[in-house]
Amino acid sequence: MPVIAIDLGGTKLAAALFNDEGEILQTTTTALNKRTGSEAGDLIVEQINVLLEFDKEKRLTTTALGICVPGIAYRSGNVWAPNIGGWDDYPLKQHLQSSLDEKISISIDSDRACYILGEAWKGNAQGCSDAIFLSVGTGIGAGIMVHGQVLRGAHDIAGAIGWMGLDRPFDSKYTSCGCFEYNASGEGLVNVYREMIADAEVTTRSIFEAYEKGDPVARKVITNAIECWGMAVANLVSLFNPEKIIFGGGVFGPALRFLDDIYEEAKRWAQPISIQQVKLSAAALGNEAGLYGAARLALKNQTTSTHV
Amino acid sequence: MPVIAIDLGGTKLAAALFNDEGEILQTTTTALNKRTGSEAGDLIVEQINVLLEFDKEKRLTTTALGICVPGIAYRSGNVWAPNIGGWDDYPLKQHLQSSLDEKISISIDSDRACYILGEAWKGNAQGCSDAIFLSVGTGIGAGIMVHGQVLRGAHDIAGAIGWMGLDRPFDSKYTSCGCFEYNASGEGLVNVYREMIADAEVTTRSIFEAYEKGDPVARKVITNAIECWGMAVANLVSLFNPEKIIFGGGVFGPALRFLDDIYEEAKRWAQPISIQQVKLSAAALGNEAGLYGAARLALKNQTTSTHV
Repeated sequence: MPVIAIDLGGTKLAAALFNDEGEILQTTTTALNKRTGSEAGDLIVEQINVLLEFDKEKRLTTTALGICVPGIAYRSGNVWAPNIGGWDDYPLKQHLQSSLDEKISISIDSDRACYILGEAWKGNAQGCSDAIFLSVGTGIGAGIMVHGQVLRGAHDIAGAIGWMGLDRPFDSKYTSCGCFEYNASGEGLVNVYREMIADAEVTTRSIFEAYEKGDPVARKVITNAIECWGMAVANLVSLFNPEKIIFGGGVFGPALRFLDDIYEEAKRWAQPISIQQVKLSAAALGNEAGLYGAARLALKNQTTSTHV
Repeated sequence: MPVIAIDLGGTKLAAALFNDEGEILQTTTTALNKRTGSEAGDLIVEQINVLLEFDKEKRLTTTALGICVPGIAYRSGNVWAPNIGGWDDYPLKQHLQSSLDEKISISIDSDRACYILGEAWKGNAQGCSDAIFLSVGTGIGAGIMVHGQVLRGAHDIAGAIGWMGLDRPFDSKYTSCGCFEYNASGEGLVNVYREMIADAEVTTRSIFEAYEKGDPVARKVITNAIECWGMAVANLVSLFNPEKIIFGGGVFGPALRFLDDIYEEAKRWAQPISIQQVKLSAAALGNEAGLYGAARLALKNQTTSTHV
């Protein structure tokens, strides 16, 4: 039976109807237009209804819905999403349940969780039971799949890898975002550049361009980041013994050309057998990873419901 | 129904018959006496038969057996145990199946996995679905429980936390054992002491004693280790969002008095919400953690078999 998938970003909302083989039957995309609180919730309801209408016309019978959110999805159904006003503990599941006419089972998870679910289903981690999505954009997060399940932790905030400590001693500059993120996120590259040239007018993109042209400061920034990415890979490998680590987010992107260097750095630090058993690769699904992950969530939930 | 638990150490073998409430009905302990290869396997068979005999006399009906091994337990049933000669890929499960008269389901896991299973069942992690046992002795390893299951990884070697990189840049001294273990295992304390005073005749124990007496070198060694233990806790917290981290092994022990300092160090590095949600504590089961964990393994397997 088909399912509905929603990928809520900070600025837009993509929705799709998937069949259970993972083919997209219909999509809609709409701008969030700075909606906040329950207005953002209403926009989701609206898009779901568009797809349910299509579903009815085609005489399909959607019974499950998956949603990818840009933040933390608590098992209560509440969501913390820093880029949507009023969503610091927003009761998304409750809002949908009370607003939708149809009875439909609802699953919500974080973007990083959806990315690894999507990649494990239809991307570069297919067939893996233990795989990790390392998302490096403005910030850094990890979607971690163990034994075929997304790792949630006791209170749903597992995977906060941007806070990984990699470099002693502690420095107060790590306080707001974590040591790994300070050094090696998109913003981190700019941080490190400006430690060497204060007030430099650079962006993540311009640093990669300067690197290409042989700029020595940019080279130091990227070399520093490769060391951090490599250590993070090593630490994930030693702890989780995964089959795949998938790199995505805006920085990977341009940093994909350094995957071999990252692996070489990781090899120095990691458990020596485990590092031989992992493959690093780029994400396959690009902007659609969240949507595929949300569909996968819904399909899993549908299966569970059928069995229970 | 009762189960048999075996805790195989590097030098001795403890065995016990447990009822399903976790009470010990009968125990045996015997020295390994440097047995190697299948002779070590035969000793296990012998101890199992002693308990099966007791089981028969009491008209109990043991159908499951759990074994805790000092190394890596592969899902094939083979074991890598560096301290037992000839056990670099020893077919333990196969040996037991062909040697035991009774039909009995056999589960084998590593010591670190059994420690967290034991503590979650009858020790200081009771009621936790997400908890970690940090074992710091001669080496360092972690038994990691997520969603109530021991984390095994794709190839059964998850939890190799001694290899965690915590301090840049890479130094060749980390090559044989990993950065965290080099700095903060029992042997690590000696390593770091000897970096300051070459050929010093110290042991892990004497370093703790010297610390008590205010020896400045010992203070530096312990301060360095606290920083590493704290960073490791922080990294586990940010990645796994666990309810409990349990400290055990020979070093915790004397280092238990530093748990508050370790927490303070961890707090500087970790995801700030997640660190508030974790409790650090000592292991409760001491030398019997492996035995309790092995019993838990057997009981879980018994339950699974019943359902299948």
